[in-house]
Amino acid sequence: MFLRNCWYVAGWDHEIQRLKLLRRMLLGEPVLLYRKGDGAPVALEDRCCHRHAPLSRGRLRGDRVECAYHGLQFDPSGACVHIPTQDTIPKSARVRAYPVAEKHSWVWIWMGDPALADPALIPDFGVMSDPGWRWRGETLAVAGNYMLVVENLMDLTHLPALHQSTLADTAVPANDIPVEYKVDSASIAVDRWVLDTPVPPYFRLLAKFTKEDRVDCWMNMWLRPPAFWRTVFGAAHAGTGARQGDRSRGVTTWNLNAVTPETERSSHYFWAQAQNFGKDDPSISELDFQLVHTAFQEDLAMIKGQQENIDLAPDALRLDLAADRAGIQARRIVERMIRDERVAVAAE
Amino acid sequence: MFLRNCWYVAGWDHEIQRLKLLRRMLLGEPVLLYRKGDGAPVALEDRCCHRHAPLSRGRLRGDRVECAYHGLQFDPSGACVHIPTQDTIPKSARVRAYPVAEKHSWVWIWMGDPALADPALIPDFGVMSDPGWRWRGETLAVAGNYMLVVENLMDLTHLPALHQSTLADTAVPANDIPVEYKVDSASIAVDRWVLDTPVPPYFRLLAKFTKEDRVDCWMNMWLRPPAFWRTVFGAAHAGTGARQGDRSRGVTTWNLNAVTPETERSSHYFWAQAQNFGKDDPSISELDFQLVHTAFQEDLAMIKGQQENIDLAPDALRLDLAADRAGIQARRIVERMIRDERVAVAAE
Amino acid sequence: MFLRNCWYVAGWDHEIQRLKLLRRMLLGEPVLLYRKGDGAPVALEDRCCHRHAPLSRGRLRGDRVECAYHGLQFDPSGACVHIPTQDTIPKSARVRAYPVAEKHSWVWIWMGDPALADPALIPDFGVMSDPGWRWRGETLAVAGNYMLVVENLMDLTHLPALHQSTLADTAVPANDIPVEYKVDSASIAVDRWVLDTPVPPYFRLLAKFTKEDRVDCWMNMWLRPPAFWRTVFGAAHAGTGARQGDRSRGVTTWNLNAVTPETERSSHYFWAQAQNFGKDDPSISELDFQLVHTAFQEDLAMIKGQQENIDLAPDALRLDLAADRAGIQARRIVERMIRDERVAVAAE
Repeated sequence: MFLRNCWYVAGWDHEIQRLKLLRRMLLGEPVLLYRKGDGAPVALEDRCCHRHAPLSRGRLRGDRVECAYHGLQFDPSGACVHIPTQDTIPKSARVRAYPVAEKHSWVWIWMGDPALADPALIPDFGVMSDPGWRWRGETLAVAGNYMLVVENLMDLTHLPALHQSTLADTAVPANDIPVEYKVDSASIAVDRWVLDTPVPPYFRLLAKFTKEDRVDCWMNMWLRPPAFWRTVFGAAHAGTGARQGDRSRGVTTWNLNAVTPETERSSHYFWAQAQNFGKDDPSISELDFQLVHTAFQEDLAMIKGQQENIDLAPDALRLDLAADRAGIQARRIVERMIRDERVAVAAE
Repeated sequence: MFLRNCWYVAGWDHEIQRLKLLRRMLLGEPVLLYRKGDGAPVALEDRCCHRHAPLSRGRLRGDRVECAYHGLQFDPSGACVHIPTQDTIPKSARVRAYPVAEKHSWVWIWMGDPALADPALIPDFGVMSDPGWRWRGETLAVAGNYMLVVENLMDLTHLPALHQSTLADTAVPANDIPVEYKVDSASIAVDRWVLDTPVPPYFRLLAKFTKEDRVDCWMNMWLRPPAFWRTVFGAAHAGTGARQGDRSRGVTTWNLNAVTPETERSSHYFWAQAQNFGKDDPSISELDFQLVHTAFQEDLAMIKGQQENIDLAPDALRLDLAADRAGIQARRIVERMIRDERVAVAAE
Repeated sequence: MFLRNCWYVAGWDHEIQRLKLLRRMLLGEPVLLYRKGDGAPVALEDRCCHRHAPLSRGRLRGDRVECAYHGLQFDPSGACVHIPTQDTIPKSARVRAYPVAEKHSWVWIWMGDPALADPALIPDFGVMSDPGWRWRGETLAVAGNYMLVVENLMDLTHLPALHQSTLADTAVPANDIPVEYKVDSASIAVDRWVLDTPVPPYFRLLAKFTKEDRVDCWMNMWLRPPAFWRTVFGAAHAGTGARQGDRSRGVTTWNLNAVTPETERSSHYFWAQAQNFGKDDPSISELDFQLVHTAFQEDLAMIKGQQENIDLAPDALRLDLAADRAGIQARRIVERMIRDERVAVAAE
């Protein structure tokens, strides 16, 4: 059961190409992704309405996709516009077309009611379009339900245990530093400040602090359900005004994440790491990406193990801890959104 | 759900051997195939009645198969005729034996009511036993339900799209040439004639026509449900009487097909390509075989894609086109035959 | 459905180590096996009560296992004793701990009601702890239900057919020699004596008999349900008192077997072969082990074939033979024990 009235990332802009018919399972459904001649992305049901052949095995004819089996052609709206063996085209001859949008280096897809697909609802990952930032991203295949990834991302407390030899030594303040939660019906924000502190190893690695410097550090995390997440890490010389709102004299990295369900048991994980400093030194961006990439491999192995145990005993109890507050909130919001959506559909 | 009162091909005559105990899944059941000392083929349930061991792991003792586990011996009728540890053999000690017949290079099996297994019901693939013909065949493993293969074979209109670089350029008349259908309760025939036409590339490749020749061409297709199909292609110099019934001055090829369900999602596909000309030039037969073999690879990939989509959404609608007439008829006949057979069994 | 109030072998003593967190599926459940600092084995549910992460991916902290995901620590009783992010530990924060015992080179686990886990109930495999005996063992992975292994072990009559080129020529008396059965509610014993007979090939291979010797031979088999089995083979010079109870002047081998269900369709098979002679010649022990090991490979292939057929038709009839008496008794006892156990649980 997935939330459908929602933008999901279908792929990186460079994954979806003019001369490639890409089949990708999204929310348990086969989707065909390609681009029109004008570059605009298209997402169609990857199943011909005639004999269920995957359209992705076919070919492009201008902006139309032609089924490789019998030559039926579909335009980007999903309408069948050519049947080689007959002049009349039945009205029901069409495949589902999904609204798509291209924003912040990702191609987004809306798999719910098309009338509700407002591009303004796309979560803000603007630093990937901002010339003031450098970034690098990738796609990871996750052998687990997307909510396991969401819980993982919302949960700082796993870092010392799971990432003790990677991120824990670098990016993360100790678990005993208080955090501020802001939860509303559509998002969760978690903030943490550490003032006048030695430079964390992460920033010593990436930025030009000295061992003797003292810094103010911030961490701002933001979830947009169901599965969009960014974490902002920053540091500035102590007392230079960051806490008061002026971060311009510090350095900031953004960890950007979008998870799209592939099936109930697997997910596409799109993420990137961005910096607003060191733009003339590519090794900084590369190092930042690699630090997180390495930690994510640890997360993926753990999520695979969780999913295996869940498959063995789907109803085993889960004990919630105080530190799970954000993750529990996230599950509640997503479950409520799915419930509301189903009630709305049932009432139509 | 399969039609059971029906001959199916169990294998090529050369696949079933004296010194080999061949296990093959047919209609979802494990079947043991071997030959008696006199060469006659035998088909038994490949599951010992004692402890369910596969008899195919055993050995032949004369015409009997001996279970490798406890040494029980079964004769070709399926009766247990020896139990090493006791003198009395219970009447119920037997495995199912299936009527078999050998005809036209294939070994046929009847998995329904043995009393109805009339060898006269075996479909006619006589050109494989006719010294006037040369042929070559093979077995293909299909990752899809057998009816997807039947639909594929009954459907000429997929050739221009799916086989555009293979068969479409050679063997097939354009889709706008009218066809004649003859449908009765037990078969479907589709015929097409093109008179006084340039030689199709297929016959220019295979036979000794010149570029300037004009020919009369025929194509005769015939389905015997559930899954036997032959297509006859022929050409003769225009006006030499083929249309009037005398094809002796032309050349003819037969495409012969028999599909046996392995499971609901996979099939054994036995086929051959035969010619009544060029018997002194083996390269002609080889070329004809390779042309079709290459096209069948395209079909198999497509059928696999269809089956994957069907598994994802078994109830998705299928839009029928005018050109699907023969395929729809075939499905209807097979569904009616299965229904009738179940009613008959229930009434017993 | 498994018998739970029962000791099963979880592993060889050397498989379960201090610095290794071993995950093993037992009775369909993931179990974590390790050793405390004092060497005592521990068996815990391999699923953290918090977010279902496999504890086996974690690390040891003294005698505690620490979950790799969030650092929760569990002591050998299964109680959570440390949560990094909070001081209060909920009472329900625990994983299941299974009683374990180490005996006769095996680590045993009790997966039923811990209050009933009396170590005195562990079946007797004492020759593995007896300095008068030499032995060698191994673990085999069986692709079949554990009762297929039990039936196999209880059944001497499969030896001539399945092991005709291995054990049948060596260890086994002919099927026509009478046996004595002793069946009670908790075990089955089968005994066979052959007096004043030429030395069987098995003992000619292993012991220092000459071709001219005549011997008294014994075979004593004993099943302790659900799945513990030992077979004693022995031979002494004819008339030296073995039949009257004094086997001390003969040679004896013990074949020791313990089968633990992994899932309904697969099993862990722990076995060893022991001798009370030839202790100064290791090649004798090695030869005895290899003779049985080779035969067991034949058994495992057969059981895999049985399981495949059973999966295809779980309800196919099984024809019982007279020689199946012991196997049928074994199934009845196990089924009755499982039934009784469920009645007892329901009555609580």
